[in-house]
Amino acid sequence: MTATNKTVSIPQGTRDFPAAVVRKRNYIFSCIRKVFEVYGFEPLETPAMENLDTLTGKYGDEGDKLIFKILNNGLNNEKNINSTRAGFEQLLAGKNSTDITERALKYDLTIPFARYVAMNLTRLTLPYRRYQIQPVWRADRPQKGRYREFTQCDADVVGSLSLLNETELANIYHDVFTTLKLNDYELRINNRKVLAALAAVCNGADKMTDITIAIDKLDKIGLENVKKELAERGLQSYQIEIIERYLCITGSNEEKIDKATVLLGNTESGKQGIEELGFLLAHATNVNLVVDLTLARGLNYYTGTIFEAKAPASVSIGSIGGGGRYDDLTGHFSVPGIPGVGISFGVDRIYDVLEELNLFPGVLEVGTRALFFNMGEPECLYAFDIMQGLRKNGIACELYYENVKIDKQFKYAEKKNIPFIVIIGSKEMNEGICQVKELSTGKQEVVPLAALHTYFNKT
Amino acid sequence: MTATNKTVSIPQGTRDFPAAVVRKRNYIFSCIRKVFEVYGFEPLETPAMENLDTLTGKYGDEGDKLIFKILNNGLNNEKNINSTRAGFEQLLAGKNSTDITERALKYDLTIPFARYVAMNLTRLTLPYRRYQIQPVWRADRPQKGRYREFTQCDADVVGSLSLLNETELANIYHDVFTTLKLNDYELRINNRKVLAALAAVCNGADKMTDITIAIDKLDKIGLENVKKELAERGLQSYQIEIIERYLCITGSNEEKIDKATVLLGNTESGKQGIEELGFLLAHATNVNLVVDLTLARGLNYYTGTIFEAKAPASVSIGSIGGGGRYDDLTGHFSVPGIPGVGISFGVDRIYDVLEELNLFPGVLEVGTRALFFNMGEPECLYAFDIMQGLRKNGIACELYYENVKIDKQFKYAEKKNIPFIVIIGSKEMNEGICQVKELSTGKQEVVPLAALHTYFNKT
Repeated sequence: MTATNKTVSIPQGTRDFPAAVVRKRNYIFSCIRKVFEVYGFEPLETPAMENLDTLTGKYGDEGDKLIFKILNNGLNNEKNINSTRAGFEQLLAGKNSTDITERALKYDLTIPFARYVAMNLTRLTLPYRRYQIQPVWRADRPQKGRYREFTQCDADVVGSLSLLNETELANIYHDVFTTLKLNDYELRINNRKVLAALAAVCNGADKMTDITIAIDKLDKIGLENVKKELAERGLQSYQIEIIERYLCITGSNEEKIDKATVLLGNTESGKQGIEELGFLLAHATNVNLVVDLTLARGLNYYTGTIFEAKAPASVSIGSIGGGGRYDDLTGHFSVPGIPGVGISFGVDRIYDVLEELNLFPGVLEVGTRALFFNMGEPECLYAFDIMQGLRKNGIACELYYENVKIDKQFKYAEKKNIPFIVIIGSKEMNEGICQVKELSTGKQEVVPLAALHTYFNKT
Repeated sequence: MTATNKTVSIPQGTRDFPAAVVRKRNYIFSCIRKVFEVYGFEPLETPAMENLDTLTGKYGDEGDKLIFKILNNGLNNEKNINSTRAGFEQLLAGKNSTDITERALKYDLTIPFARYVAMNLTRLTLPYRRYQIQPVWRADRPQKGRYREFTQCDADVVGSLSLLNETELANIYHDVFTTLKLNDYELRINNRKVLAALAAVCNGADKMTDITIAIDKLDKIGLENVKKELAERGLQSYQIEIIERYLCITGSNEEKIDKATVLLGNTESGKQGIEELGFLLAHATNVNLVVDLTLARGLNYYTGTIFEAKAPASVSIGSIGGGGRYDDLTGHFSVPGIPGVGISFGVDRIYDVLEELNLFPGVLEVGTRALFFNMGEPECLYAFDIMQGLRKNGIACELYYENVKIDKQFKYAEKKNIPFIVIIGSKEMNEGICQVKELSTGKQEVVPLAALHTYFNKT
């Protein structure tokens, strides 16, 4: 056979998933999907491409640059040439032009979801509980753990203000992580109202976004650099001092809440945010909740509870999920007044964590369970019918159709991680039996053909 | 609540899939996937985007026009401006330019599969049996049943010449269709070698492609128009006469094979093609095979057996799958000599057939099985814990978190097709019981809370 062609490649930041990886990814997806469904969330799928104006202006300037735009077809048709030229000049000026591109790949699942809700509001039953597991695309600089095509897993409830939604979503994190045996996960919680109170108390209500952005970096850059950034963003030293006092609050969940109450409990927003944190702690008692007053989350649209799920401390992979409450999902699409709350799982990160902790079930390694050897033409045709009988019983098997040396057939089974081989030679054919060999142990057994499917159903 | 925004839309030819549709589609996918796996095929997933030069030149000029290309990012960066302008002029001249676009959305699953095999040949174990279920994109004119984003389901074996592969793939069609209760499917078969023999016998070996393309239209345009097209494509009347004699062969499978042998059995290619058809008929005895000598299939790369699966005649939807044998999968990528055979399922068509014949299982209509009513704040918090107990037992349920009138909660259950409602008022709380009402019958029962999950596991 000819050699692999090394000059062929795939786009930077994208991946092929061979069988072993697909099986492991599906294990994670199916676990998340089952939990979502048992919680009454229903599936939604939206197209890979959206109209460009559905996406632009929703992710900030930096986000907009990362949207993959799709070239219109037929640009060089004669009747299009003039508008194509005009559109191209617009593009060079840094503007979008529908003459060149009017569609783009989705950048996340939230905006397509908002677009869907706005388009279908009269048909939907509110509260609408949907989950969505689909790939998204970002023209980000590829690096370890960051891809240009990756899958998001989101669950959102829109049209309900009850804090029981938050309680439920916290439980979803718990159920998914414990099903995946990530028992040492942490679900950090905070509340944007608490952060708003902090801004108010330090007289920086107008600087709420600056404060949030700076605090959000605490984990990465440390307290001193956050203070520096706050100063650069125009906060004065007495303000920074109050923020520092807040960021240095430590202790158990209860202690943190007590200290935050002292600092912020005089404001309406502070009181409410702290109450909401208390509600979650009181009702999601199963969940390994950690009040983290320094949790801010970058996204601007959160208005209440915010979540961040952390992998077990033993692995150096940080956030494996996040979410929060927002006031206005569909305002961008001229349908204001729909509040909601949602969470997301970081599947690529979870994959790395499970791999590192060796938590993928061994059964995922096996596809085909038995390989029937090809012992010659009549034997092979005979074995084909026997194999079809096994397949009817749901046992995944193959027959080596090419008539090659036994050696090569052995190698095939080993390389494909097939645990059993089945040998039917002319002697076995005459006696209605076969030899079954387990590759891991080398153990070989004679099994009557009539009992073969029972044999595999047991092992 | 505000009204639906009707000005928001999605790109022409794309679709949102709400829960009911996702469930039905997943029912089809999961059936196909299970059969593929039991036959020892392993999953592969490739990225949505490929390098543009991986795709261009593989689908013919018409196909190339239907490829969705992705605009490079940062075209208006200052350092790019010159090459962007140059690239744009190339684009206007009808050529590709990597300065403007170097990636594109995949158009089918076959070329990405070929690219994958060429890239990974040394790591793969041949024969390589892979299946792939993923969306593809084509800038086709949208019409009923034709979309710009649709999902393909392919299974291919590469690196094996044995006809048992064809036998197995025919059985896969049978198993999938009968699992979906499409028992009256037909699997039409023919062989490109038979068509090559026909071309040779009528002295038109150089016109093989023309003959194939014309014959492929027989179903749609009728015999007279096929003859007209053959004439237009330069076939002479004595040649057309032989082709007509061939196309008019009728009868049972055996009769057709006998008549074809008389006409074409003198050529090496004819003999071989007819033998191969005979092998399939002899060994895929389960399968509802119909020899269809007029079956040609448009694609140029087929060289042996060709398949076309037809929906039951009672629905006016034609092909629901197709495939065939090819000699050279990866030749385009400088890795020649890898033969293979593959099949594909037309999921959108199968969906329409199942819908028309009412063959989707009723259970797909139901997501959430029980809705707990909100009877006030303490009752609601109490019910939350009871509900969590059910969810732990795998029973999909919800609690109406908003404190609204019972009426509205009833409507929610009805609109969401939730079969049961569970009522826990203060009286029930005190007695440790609940009222369970089945909406379809109106039947109401008192169930002890401790027995609730057993109740739902039984119903």
